[in-house]
This record gives sequence, C-alpha cells and structure tokens, in this order.
Amino acid sequence: MEFILYGNRESGHSYKARLMLTLTQTPHEYRPIDIELPRDRRPAEFQQVSRYGEVPVLLDRGQAYVQSNAILLHLAQRTMKFYGRDAVDHDQVREWLFWEANRIGISVPNLRFCLRWIPDTKPEVLDWLRARALADLDRMNSEFGERKFLLGEIPTVADISCCGYLFWADQADIDLSAWPHVQRWLGDISALPGWKHPYDLMS
Amino acid sequence: MEFILYGNRESGHSYKARLMLTLTQTPHEYRPIDIELPRDRRPAEFQQVSRYGEVPVLLDRGQAYVQSNAILLHLAQRTMKFYGRDAVDHDQVREWLFWEANRIGISVPNLRFCLRWIPDTKPEVLDWLRARALADLDRMNSEFGERKFLLGEIPTVADISCCGYLFWADQADIDLSAWPHVQRWLGDISALPGWKHPYDLMS
Repeated sequence: MEFILYGNRESGHSYKARLMLTLTQTPHEYRPIDIELPRDRRPAEFQQVSRYGEVPVLLDRGQAYVQSNAILLHLAQRTMKFYGRDAVDHDQVREWLFWEANRIGISVPNLRFCLRWIPDTKPEVLDWLRARALADLDRMNSEFGERKFLLGEIPTVADISCCGYLFWADQADIDLSAWPHVQRWLGDISALPGWKHPYDLMS
Repeated sequence: MEFILYGNRESGHSYKARLMLTLTQTPHEYRPIDIELPRDRRPAEFQQVSRYGEVPVLLDRGQAYVQSNAILLHLAQRTMKFYGRDAVDHDQVREWLFWEANRIGISVPNLRFCLRWIPDTKPEVLDWLRARALADLDRMNSEFGERKFLLGEIPTVADISCCGYLFWADQADIDLSAWPHVQRWLGDISALPGWKHPYDLMS
C-alpha cells in the first residue's frame, strides 16, 4: 500500500489527514495508535517513523510525513485534488493552513483537551483559550460572504484543515449556532461524498 | 518596486518576512505600520491590502500575501533561495513552518506579549504559556544533533521562521543559556551575511 496513516480517534489532526484521503478516494491503510500508551510502548514500527511519538504520521512510499497541515499540502500536491485551481489558490490555501495552525487549530483543540482530559486546568487558562476560540470563530464566520467554502465554490484542504476539530465543538463547550455561517459551512462539508464524523471515520 | 513589505518593529512575524528579503538580497521597500493606531486609522493603502489590519503583509507585483510563514514559502519559491535542495527538503521545510506556527511561534510571542504589554495577565496564563515555551525550546534543542541548521548545513526558511522571536527571548523572561544548541544555532544565524537584530532591521 502506497499510503499508510497512523492516527488516533480522539485526534482531530489525525482526522484531517484521513478525511483528505477519504474525500479524495485515495487508497490507504489506516493504523490506529493507542496514544494512552507511553511513547516507548507504542508499536515499534510507529516509533520508527514518528520521531516524537506524535500522531498523525503519513507514510508515502516509505517516506514519513508529520504535521497535519503539511500532510494535507503533501496530499493535495500528490493527488492534485482539494488544492484549488491555480497558483493564487495555492497561496491562499497556505495562508489558511497557517492561520489554522496558529489560531483555530490551537484554541478549540486545547479548550476541548483541557475540558475533557485535564480536570485541574486553571479556570484562567480556560478563559484565555475560550476567548481565543470565540475570536477565531468570529473571524471564520465573517469570512464566507457569498462563498460556499473558504476559497469559493470548491472545497480545498483549507476547509479540511479548519473544520478538523469543529465537529467536536460540543466537547469544547461551544454552541456553534452563534456562528451561522460556520454552521452552514460545516453542513456543506459533511454533505461531501464520503464524509464521515471523526468518531465514525477513525474508529 | 516588485516587493513591498508592511510590518512593525515589535512584530517578530514581520521580522521573519523582512529577514528573508534581506538575507536573499531581494530588493524591496519596507513600510512600517503603527499598530498602536486603531485599525481604521492606519494608512488607507494598508487597510486596502490587509483585510484584518494585521502585519505583515507582502505585496508582490500588486498581489497581497499574509501569514508570515506563507509569505516565507512564497518568497522561497519566488527566489529559490532558503528553500532546501529538493522536494524532500521542501516537505521538511513545511513541517517546520507548521510546527513553528502551532508551537514556538505561539508560546514565546504570547509570553513576551503578555509580559510586556498586558500587565494584568493572570499568572496562571503566564505559567501555561511558559510551560509550552520551555517544552518547545527543549524540543528544538534536541533537534540539531550534528546539524548546523534545522535541515542540515544550509539555512532555510525553517530557520528564519523558528528564530523569529528568539532574539527577544529576554523580553519573554527566558534565558537561552539553558538550551546551548539553540543558542549556538542563533549565533550561526546571526553570522549570516546581512543579518540584523529585529530592532535594527525593522526600525
């Protein structure tokens, strides 16, 4: 198999990578990794390709790729799907991926992580994360205008990246009805052929 | 002028973009933006190209580019400098840029920002940011091995991106002598022809 993806069902970053493989109908093998195991007790083959023991890792013809957004770009270039139409789109896709990496891909996942798994997180930290998450959702909500997806009428890896954790908004104690354009957009993503919710795709 | 960069002297993200232009000897015009002015009172030409009023913005033949790491990738492709040697390097450059965007490009800048400009930041938030910053520096420090730069013997935009805020480590109350490989690497970056400290380059 050309593509092997190591991931975990609670990892939205893993979900982004597998959603891309699924939506592009790219044949691949998915190997779930138990991230509750200490890093040195995870499967040897995984330890070998994942220097820091993190998921996701994509193997493409034996070469390991890490960082979910870098994986998305790699797959967009390999498949020439979900990459936009031209060089201008490619630049805008990257802008969105970097925005995700330092905004909504930090705030929402960390808020969810602390609420679900770190019960002694200080309320001040939760407040800080929540304020960022709300600001990020405000910005996304203002982005669409008449556009169906982030870059226009066709979905790209920018959409795949930014939606990653939002199907778990409830777990971050976020009610998306306050951001109707974001909610509409998530609905359009989930209507794409092959789409599945993280817990269905990554089980 | 083909390239125009809008930035601010306190913005490490702006510095990254200008450092790239400088190290590659790319002719450009730098236009400082006073980010203490409310967004709607900043120069009209800047408001026009910067939808969210953020720096940096790069204009390349009239087209606006945002997000510092996306700008670095754009410039690496335009100049074919600081981009590594081959497609494998390009993928690794992107992995580092995304790592920077969600790790050291969040933790250190926010810690510095809160310490310098937001005196009422809750100590719990400072602790959270500091813990991340130290973990990120630990990881960087373990990365070099025998390598001079992040990808090997030649510097790339991965180095330019990751070093951005570290020349201000003292302002984040971080003493880099605890991470000798990081300190050595910063020394090698600052020995590159044309290098300048942020306050000298961006004034």
